[in-house]
Amino acid sequence: MAKVLLGVTMSLDGFIAGPNDEVELLHDWLFGGEHVFYRGGSSFRLDAGDVEILEEAFWMTGAGVIGRRTYDLAEEPWGDDPPFHVPCFVVTHRANEKVVKGETSFSFVTDGVESAIEEAKAAAGDKHVGIMGASITQQCINAGLLDELQIHIAPIILGKGIRLFENMDTDLIKLEKTKVIDSPRVTHIRYQVIR
Amino acid sequence: MAKVLLGVTMSLDGFIAGPNDEVELLHDWLFGGEHVFYRGGSSFRLDAGDVEILEEAFWMTGAGVIGRRTYDLAEEPWGDDPPFHVPCFVVTHRANEKVVKGETSFSFVTDGVESAIEEAKAAAGDKHVGIMGASITQQCINAGLLDELQIHIAPIILGKGIRLFENMDTDLIKLEKTKVIDSPRVTHIRYQVIR
Repeated sequence: MAKVLLGVTMSLDGFIAGPNDEVELLHDWLFGGEHVFYRGGSSFRLDAGDVEILEEAFWMTGAGVIGRRTYDLAEEPWGDDPPFHVPCFVVTHRANEKVVKGETSFSFVTDGVESAIEEAKAAAGDKHVGIMGASITQQCINAGLLDELQIHIAPIILGKGIRLFENMDTDLIKLEKTKVIDSPRVTHIRYQVIR
Repeated sequence: MAKVLLGVTMSLDGFIAGPNDEVELLHDWLFGGEHVFYRGGSSFRLDAGDVEILEEAFWMTGAGVIGRRTYDLAEEPWGDDPPFHVPCFVVTHRANEKVVKGETSFSFVTDGVESAIEEAKAAAGDKHVGIMGASITQQCINAGLLDELQIHIAPIILGKGIRLFENMDTDLIKLEKTKVIDSPRVTHIRYQVIR
């Protein structure tokens, strides 16, 4: 059964973007290194140890679930061939025709995050569902849908911006730490949710 | 010159205590292990890899700065011989006679955190100043006084409680990651503030 995975870069103080949605400083590990890595129309510049992390993230993911706001913000930078190359499901109140860009499709789901996760699981085959964005993450945590977290901790204190963990309406969640990989520009920590 | 160091255990979602100041689940790495470690009237139970971390933390610290709220909450659990064994400075609006307990003293500073840090630096000799508590941390960050952070990330999402990083009134702060030590119950990451 497909698991629901969150992979996200977070500042030490818990932000995944600045107050105006800026991510450049957080994403230095994706674009500041020496090793060029292409995926669809996107190119990344990674440190050697991070190449495997990004490859594995793409390889594990068979479908995506994202919020409408993330989609609207990222549509332009992602360009004509976004890097996902899997079916993605956009949780929104506004119905929209399915959008296909390169090898990535975006279907618009208007009946909530649980429905989007269900569709994504069905589409993921023997791989997993990746989720993106603070709001979708919070909705998945509150609905008990999240299975694994891979947090890339960037060495920065932003002070303000979009907080990953807030609006939480859940009891505390115990995690099992399954992997820590330290890298020059970032620290990767992977956790499983204990149920 | 003495540096100002923050050493604190934080949940993955950024809390250093629960909504009623509970710290038990966060501090599993201090009390859930096999190796007994005594310091003053306190005893800790650590995993093998964490013994050195705690020893080093005590060894590096020549003076402490804490908030009045932390002091009031911790006075009872710390008992007659708190584990610090250094001069501590309590930032407060209420003047108070100096309190000596075992090898630890508490002086009450009523003219603000900068003054308390200055007194602590003078008292720290060739060691460093350790700070404790969310409010003191935020005040030190906002005043540009913090030099190093050692964050012990506990594998738990608390959802609510006392957040370490908020009320920030500073530009973004770039950090240099200097050390990562992974341990069964916690991940230790040490950063220097880049100025």
